[in-house]
Amino acid sequence: MSFKHVAIIGLGLLGGSIGLAVRQHLPGTVTTGYDSDAAVRIRAAERQLADTICDSAAEAVKGADLVILCVPVGAMGDAARAMAEALEPGALVSDVGSSKQSISRALAEALPGHEVIPAHPVAGTEDSGPDAGFATLFHQRWCIITPPEGADPERVAALADFWQALGAMVDTMDPQHHDRVLAVTSHIPHLIAYTIVGTASDLETVTRSEVIKYSAGGFRDFTRIAASDPTMWRDVFLHNRDAVLEMLDSFLTDLALMREAIRAGDGETMFDLFSRTREVRRSIVAIGQDDARPDFGRKDHD
Amino acid sequence: MSFKHVAIIGLGLLGGSIGLAVRQHLPGTVTTGYDSDAAVRIRAAERQLADTICDSAAEAVKGADLVILCVPVGAMGDAARAMAEALEPGALVSDVGSSKQSISRALAEALPGHEVIPAHPVAGTEDSGPDAGFATLFHQRWCIITPPEGADPERVAALADFWQALGAMVDTMDPQHHDRVLAVTSHIPHLIAYTIVGTASDLETVTRSEVIKYSAGGFRDFTRIAASDPTMWRDVFLHNRDAVLEMLDSFLTDLALMREAIRAGDGETMFDLFSRTREVRRSIVAIGQDDARPDFGRKDHD
Repeated sequence: MSFKHVAIIGLGLLGGSIGLAVRQHLPGTVTTGYDSDAAVRIRAAERQLADTICDSAAEAVKGADLVILCVPVGAMGDAARAMAEALEPGALVSDVGSSKQSISRALAEALPGHEVIPAHPVAGTEDSGPDAGFATLFHQRWCIITPPEGADPERVAALADFWQALGAMVDTMDPQHHDRVLAVTSHIPHLIAYTIVGTASDLETVTRSEVIKYSAGGFRDFTRIAASDPTMWRDVFLHNRDAVLEMLDSFLTDLALMREAIRAGDGETMFDLFSRTREVRRSIVAIGQDDARPDFGRKDHD
Repeated sequence: MSFKHVAIIGLGLLGGSIGLAVRQHLPGTVTTGYDSDAAVRIRAAERQLADTICDSAAEAVKGADLVILCVPVGAMGDAARAMAEALEPGALVSDVGSSKQSISRALAEALPGHEVIPAHPVAGTEDSGPDAGFATLFHQRWCIITPPEGADPERVAALADFWQALGAMVDTMDPQHHDRVLAVTSHIPHLIAYTIVGTASDLETVTRSEVIKYSAGGFRDFTRIAASDPTMWRDVFLHNRDAVLEMLDSFLTDLALMREAIRAGDGETMFDLFSRTREVRRSIVAIGQDDARPDFGRKDHD
């Protein structure tokens, strides 16, 4: 079983990349797309992010056997309601959001009687909007499917096949565990990055232009993540609060220990931590989840 | 006035890159190199990191009119004492360390009667050791010179010329201000990265292999920095304690505010911060201090 017509609701980085990836990898599959922002729809049509860009969600989902919601986490419920009546009876509804417990609840409430199987491709860049997407975004990235209890195994398998066809690797997990995993691998890193970039911009003793000028010593890495879409990330923190606070408090405990080590001049504690963390990097590079070249292969060194 | 013979003490990422950069950019200048680790000396000779690799610091500095110490911050005093007697009377001594107040004191104490002008090229990668260096490491990077009071302006200018010849841009600043600037642009980012990678490795509810697998959502960026040399970074935190604690406390204050915003569901505070930080990224890219391509131009998306 495979999907013949995929409707994409929301044509930013993720939605646009899905449309382009389907064209590249599943040439027999038709795509329709919709975005609530008229300017985005115009640009999406220019870039041909889907075969047809529609003027309403209802029009986009008509005839679709797979509908993927690619809107910020907080907009999922409204986006689902806007298309509910036009949805084909047998259509499968999925999404790409970064917090699965809240989305599972919102979509189940908004779409009674429809099959919903949430998913989350762990992929992205700091760019957003209709110009940001590209066909290979999902290559070698994990897509986590969080099937609700009682989900049809054939539908789960079909969704997994779809993501694999776009180049992704697929795992399944329960939504609660997903939210904890993503809190530590994605949400806390974003929160920390946003916060330190804010801190550095507001210092009294060091100017903002000095921070920018001398950013190559490490700071610039954080600014990439801190350039991510503000609406998307506000929604993530509003909707994955418990897991984020749990992981944040673990981090704060560890940071307090490091602060005390620095205050006390305890080089041994620092050296122990700084040696352990290298191994994590090596493992990530070894399984192909990051570029092995120094500095991510940045162009600096020409 | 330019230098005819540069001695490089310590042949890791920075020392090795200086040697290779001198050969590329200043072909008339002779280089000698020394490292206290015999295995590093062998590899340095194979890679020709300097024209001559010497078996002692004394031998390396003989005849040199510029000596650059490229050892961890905590090893600067010992390295200086090891070569003090062999140093030519008119030689200028400089370094590449990341904390300038402590190094200025250590070198002045170890080398009475010699001219010392500390410097810090703000450049590097996560790699270390004699295989890590490359000739273009300093291209388009800032080098901060921190001349002591009463330093000979001609010597300062000659050192600036030297770094510019290697492709760097040069600024001067007092050591105290340097240490604050670097605390925020380099030392705190490293501390945070090391800490979150440690936190993520030790969680009870999420396994280490899950963290590694799903790292593409942001976490992997932090692991690059957290793969940096443990000895070098331990020494930085031991020797730039006051500025690091000052900046860390600013960050902790801001992080507590964000924690409260998440707890209270205050989306406006989050959105305000997440919007402001984008601008910092844009400025860094605009002045050529980072790669403009999404994801630093990583190879993922082939």
